[in-house]
Amino acid sequence: MSFGIDDLPVRDELRGKSPYGAPQLDVPVRLNTNENPYPLPEPLVERIAERVRAAARDLNRYPDRDAVELRTQLAKYLTDTSGHEVGLANVWAANGSNEVIQQLLQTFGGPGRTAIGFEPSYSMHGLIARGTGTGWISGPRNEDFTIDVEAAVRAIADAKPDVVFVTTPNNPTGNAVPPETVLALYEAAQAAKPSMVVVDEAYVEFSHGDSLLPLIEGRPQLVISRTMSKAFGAAGLRLGYLAAHPAVVDAVQLVRLPYHLSAVTQATALAALEHTDTLLKYVEQLKTERDRLVSELRALGFQVVESDANFVQFGLFDDSHAAWQKILDRGVLVRDNGIPGWLRVSAGTPEENDAFLDAVRDMKKEQSA
Amino acid sequence: MSFGIDDLPVRDELRGKSPYGAPQLDVPVRLNTNENPYPLPEPLVERIAERVRAAARDLNRYPDRDAVELRTQLAKYLTDTSGHEVGLANVWAANGSNEVIQQLLQTFGGPGRTAIGFEPSYSMHGLIARGTGTGWISGPRNEDFTIDVEAAVRAIADAKPDVVFVTTPNNPTGNAVPPETVLALYEAAQAAKPSMVVVDEAYVEFSHGDSLLPLIEGRPQLVISRTMSKAFGAAGLRLGYLAAHPAVVDAVQLVRLPYHLSAVTQATALAALEHTDTLLKYVEQLKTERDRLVSELRALGFQVVESDANFVQFGLFDDSHAAWQKILDRGVLVRDNGIPGWLRVSAGTPEENDAFLDAVRDMKKEQSA
Repeated sequence: MSFGIDDLPVRDELRGKSPYGAPQLDVPVRLNTNENPYPLPEPLVERIAERVRAAARDLNRYPDRDAVELRTQLAKYLTDTSGHEVGLANVWAANGSNEVIQQLLQTFGGPGRTAIGFEPSYSMHGLIARGTGTGWISGPRNEDFTIDVEAAVRAIADAKPDVVFVTTPNNPTGNAVPPETVLALYEAAQAAKPSMVVVDEAYVEFSHGDSLLPLIEGRPQLVISRTMSKAFGAAGLRLGYLAAHPAVVDAVQLVRLPYHLSAVTQATALAALEHTDTLLKYVEQLKTERDRLVSELRALGFQVVESDANFVQFGLFDDSHAAWQKILDRGVLVRDNGIPGWLRVSAGTPEENDAFLDAVRDMKKEQSA
Repeated sequence: MSFGIDDLPVRDELRGKSPYGAPQLDVPVRLNTNENPYPLPEPLVERIAERVRAAARDLNRYPDRDAVELRTQLAKYLTDTSGHEVGLANVWAANGSNEVIQQLLQTFGGPGRTAIGFEPSYSMHGLIARGTGTGWISGPRNEDFTIDVEAAVRAIADAKPDVVFVTTPNNPTGNAVPPETVLALYEAAQAAKPSMVVVDEAYVEFSHGDSLLPLIEGRPQLVISRTMSKAFGAAGLRLGYLAAHPAVVDAVQLVRLPYHLSAVTQATALAALEHTDTLLKYVEQLKTERDRLVSELRALGFQVVESDANFVQFGLFDDSHAAWQKILDRGVLVRDNGIPGWLRVSAGTPEENDAFLDAVRDMKKEQSA
């Protein structure tokens, strides 16, 4: 036996665990990680090279620790798209929304504290809770994947968590959470503790409805978490951000690693924000394709959760892992999130979606044969 | 009174704290954060732009989660410069050595566990311990800032910490820790628990001696932490890495945020590694300048700690903050690390160091007038 993880003095709760992450398989059509299928337009690629070249001339110096220019431009983007004015003081940025969430849990969760999420939802919330020593509470969800407000309010009143996560549109199910539900959970959280409510809007640009950003007004315990990975087509950039009361932005700076956001990350994100209009046009195309996936899957007889995201949860399968494998055998990689009976497919290009629909049609045919 | 941090449900230990970070002042000569004063050479700037342009064409996809190409090249650099062969499986990379240390503490420290450092040393070790819920133990150091092996071994035997930090060359004092001291601390740590020993070699390229990297052979609880911020002149890049037994690299992947290292960071670091030879020539210049600072400060009558880093700790001052201000009044920013009687100056370009030496000479003259 060679020396391995369990021979090291790792924390007990890490023993026997595996690193999080979707299988990275080399197949023709990858619709498993909700990436945006459209590469950045060439003028933006050039602008990134130009901005990074300028940043590289100063690379011997530490980056702007407070990322002032970037946060100002993110605030402008949020203001322009939500109609609710936010500024530099309301916005914080980090390496992916995962790091934003980690900083929030280090500030408001941590040892001796707890966080709740309504599952199935974005599984990193629970994993980052574990990584920060925050107790994790798995809250309830209805069979149709909506949040049962009464049950959720009761769970908050009972458990008195320090942090409440609401993912809307929800990942991996795709459905948006109505604003009145978020407000009810916020009220319950304030009555119970008061605790922080983190609304994870990673996919909100694909929604039929609006961002809940305006709700931060007068609610200093409400945080909206966002990302440039999906709508901005920049998963490789790792840029997440939050909008909240300025006190929240001040508070996370007590735990952020100094100079956490590199000069090249800041430069690249600023370039992408200059091209917002073009990138949001791709979002419109993806919404159309997402709606097509929903209706064609339904026409094929699948159950499909109403989607406000760039992906679609579909089923039901007696054995969803076997179905996942059958689709993979036809060259299309979708995601098995371990929710019995269901699989998730990201909206790709029209050609990729056709390939996916052909694969599931073929699988259906085989079953009825 | 406006709503502030303390009105939020932040963790108790964060109340009343301020974010870590040196004052960012706009003065002609900044010798306060141990940055490399030499901008990257223009061919490297161009190569970064080229590599980032290529990465940007795939930016809609998540980056290589395991950073295989980058870790392979870092391993090659370590092998070439230490003469001790390491490979991909021995190396891990993250956003600055701060994130490397955070991941190590999440894996081997955390709630209910403790870490020790011998202070004064790199203050982020203690701050990241706090941020990860790890108890912090301030270990002893001699008055001349060397480590008292006997006292340190006793502190480890008594406290039985889960993680032991040894910074060599030490920051902010500049002196290197002899290999036999590190070995004695490692033995003590194994006898006590066993616990992990993290050797922070952020400044080792500036040392008169060699890296302790070869010591990882046969010592799976020993970790060497490194950075591209100093020797590679890339503080703005935020690229830290570690070398250790493959089991350590496997273990930190249980806590790393998935896709923590962006595609632009990976591309930029790879470009810099292609120019290692040129960048190490700047290191030689800085070593010469560092030695000049030591001898000229001594000639001026200052006490100076022997330095193996790109900075020099000098004193003694009755009031080191007043001395810091006097040097600043002459246009030169040095670092007051809060160690009574001492200040730290980073080695800059010959012109910057002349400006610094003029400033302290001037200050001396004023005092004796």
